[in-house]
Amino acid sequence: MATPSINGPRLLASLAELGQVGALEGGGVCRLALTDADKAGRDWTVARMRALGMSVSIDAIGNVVATHAGQQDGPAVMTGSHIDTVRTGGLYDGNYGVLAGLEVVAALRDAGVRTRRPIAVAFFTNEEGARFAPDMMGSLVYQGGLALEAALSTTGIDGKTVGDELRRIGYAGPAPVGANRVDSFIELHIEQGPVLHREGVRIGVVEGVQGISWTEFTVHGVSNHAGTTPMNMRNDAGYVAACVATFARDLTRRLGGNQIATVGAVTLAPNLVNVIPNKAVFTVDLRNTDGEALKAAEAQLWAQAERIASEEGVRCERRMLARFDPVAFDPAVVRRIESIAAGRNLSHRRMPSGAGHDAQMLAPMCPTGMIFVPSIDGLSHNVRERTEPEDLVAGAEVLLQALTDLANRP
Amino acid sequence: MATPSINGPRLLASLAELGQVGALEGGGVCRLALTDADKAGRDWTVARMRALGMSVSIDAIGNVVATHAGQQDGPAVMTGSHIDTVRTGGLYDGNYGVLAGLEVVAALRDAGVRTRRPIAVAFFTNEEGARFAPDMMGSLVYQGGLALEAALSTTGIDGKTVGDELRRIGYAGPAPVGANRVDSFIELHIEQGPVLHREGVRIGVVEGVQGISWTEFTVHGVSNHAGTTPMNMRNDAGYVAACVATFARDLTRRLGGNQIATVGAVTLAPNLVNVIPNKAVFTVDLRNTDGEALKAAEAQLWAQAERIASEEGVRCERRMLARFDPVAFDPAVVRRIESIAAGRNLSHRRMPSGAGHDAQMLAPMCPTGMIFVPSIDGLSHNVRERTEPEDLVAGAEVLLQALTDLANRP
Repeated sequence: MATPSINGPRLLASLAELGQVGALEGGGVCRLALTDADKAGRDWTVARMRALGMSVSIDAIGNVVATHAGQQDGPAVMTGSHIDTVRTGGLYDGNYGVLAGLEVVAALRDAGVRTRRPIAVAFFTNEEGARFAPDMMGSLVYQGGLALEAALSTTGIDGKTVGDELRRIGYAGPAPVGANRVDSFIELHIEQGPVLHREGVRIGVVEGVQGISWTEFTVHGVSNHAGTTPMNMRNDAGYVAACVATFARDLTRRLGGNQIATVGAVTLAPNLVNVIPNKAVFTVDLRNTDGEALKAAEAQLWAQAERIASEEGVRCERRMLARFDPVAFDPAVVRRIESIAAGRNLSHRRMPSGAGHDAQMLAPMCPTGMIFVPSIDGLSHNVRERTEPEDLVAGAEVLLQALTDLANRP
Repeated sequence: MATPSINGPRLLASLAELGQVGALEGGGVCRLALTDADKAGRDWTVARMRALGMSVSIDAIGNVVATHAGQQDGPAVMTGSHIDTVRTGGLYDGNYGVLAGLEVVAALRDAGVRTRRPIAVAFFTNEEGARFAPDMMGSLVYQGGLALEAALSTTGIDGKTVGDELRRIGYAGPAPVGANRVDSFIELHIEQGPVLHREGVRIGVVEGVQGISWTEFTVHGVSNHAGTTPMNMRNDAGYVAACVATFARDLTRRLGGNQIATVGAVTLAPNLVNVIPNKAVFTVDLRNTDGEALKAAEAQLWAQAERIASEEGVRCERRMLARFDPVAFDPAVVRRIESIAAGRNLSHRRMPSGAGHDAQMLAPMCPTGMIFVPSIDGLSHNVRERTEPEDLVAGAEVLLQALTDLANRP
């Protein structure tokens, strides 16, 4: 019995091979959830699972869980991610976590190692949400956060429903959702941000997923001639938008920590050079790993918007476009990943996840963690998404050890 | 020989009557320059001039100058404005100045008064610029600031040229442009802003026309995921736009005086709630009656934009969309209008004009001034544009006295 180890070339080849399914001319892939391309990707992945001798279960929302039996029965140590992509996606987002999980199983088989507990590799339906909302749908249903019937009746951007499309591609499986009890869950993923690459750090030890607060503000001012209206007689909706945008940046400086803020969308009316705007619609995206801090940031932002609007003599409405509490991963799992990276002399840092991931849906069910590897220039959801091959292999090695440690613990 | 005095009902009736030409359903008028409606308005006005016994001259750009003979020949004391309108115009913008001028002549005739110098009433072609650019075209050609041939070959928004349209409506006149020497010029106009109405002041004594500086900034940042990109790794084009917009407001506070600033147009790309903007295009409209102060404001604005862009690590380009120096009216004419208002116990204040007017084109040619009356709620270029009838009459009375004083001076 040898020590199991990742076969780097095999992992990279599998990523390249799955990247051929739904490949875009010039690079990247398009495998929107439950399309023919997604079916082809699923078929390819399930065939690989079966070739590894795993038992494959498909549930009613199309989540696929392949299990490599352990010495004992009982809940599996699970890894996994998703294989659907955005319309102009890369080869690594999601796919990397699934195929690295299968490489772990292949490495165990090569070495003739059977862990105490089973090891499962899952891919969840419609993580991207690019065809059907919400995103992370499969893992959300798996967790019980969204009723199966509601998910199946969801209509996509092309007018088709999740249920019809699942049946059409043959992935409306017989297993009840959430039937598997899970011992623990670790997701390996590309960072999709610039931090690890810029800092030259190879492993991100993910402590949790940021909470998200999206507010849309609508400011109702008064249009007037830019030349004939004195400054003290203005009710300028655009000025209020600008003040709130600069305040949002100041807020991140003042609160510090992991508080971030983005004003991504601004629309003025009538949007003419010589007319004072009578309307401004703009969004503020606040994120923080700390739920209380996020609430405080929201409260300060909203109060400031009210104050500026009042000073300018305009009316300011707001509505929430999205609101998710932060998710904290299991401290013991986080420490375990950290110590594995350290033990392998891989540079590493603790960090939050800025994007949402299936792991956050598993977190309420079992001890959960995530491992990040660097995204070159932080690019993701982009056909130029790339990660250095040695980082892909290093991440898989950390995953192998984390899964086997968890699966073998007493 | 009686003392000449304005016949208020006759003035108001003439405004209402001209307002029927090109009338819009529900109120307001549309007489875009050199259209059939403009021809009908011109024909109506010229008929009124002829009925007053005035000699009418039409020049090659379609400016119409009607002269009421004086006791002596020589340069006339002139008043006037325009009768073209924007697409959804009111009844007073321009028309009021022309018809009040004709009411002055009617009042002189009624009283049997003949002034020493001739009094002329003009309407200038295409003041609004709503069909052909630039605006104030007729008075600009009259002044010599734009060559006749260039003006005639200008193509409008409907593909027709000024020259063809002038010929078509019969207003390509035989008089050479700028052939009239002008003794002095006074334009009576609605304010088109809120100052007089809000302050309850009846006569605006216009000291000059603000200089205008329109800068368009284009900021080139980097698009990134709003969740995964730490604050210190951002190159946010939208943030730079917001900072410059708030700075522009601060600038008006700091510089004071007549400095005004408006950010009327902002466009972000990709303009999505969760993507850091990679591009921001926005305009800053600066105006000041003081040319040196306007230059200083521009310099501070541009320097600040550079500084903020540099701090954010983005590139900022700028281009001038428009640049006009301020025009100062003749101090003696300004004082004369002020003392006439005072003598009639009409509340009055000195003020700049925020909008452009034909008078600014006459200012280099002869001593020039303007009289404003209040616009209710500051509305103009709007079918709801209105001025109280007693203010319309009061303005005409000030004009009558100003023109007769100037025409009778030794």
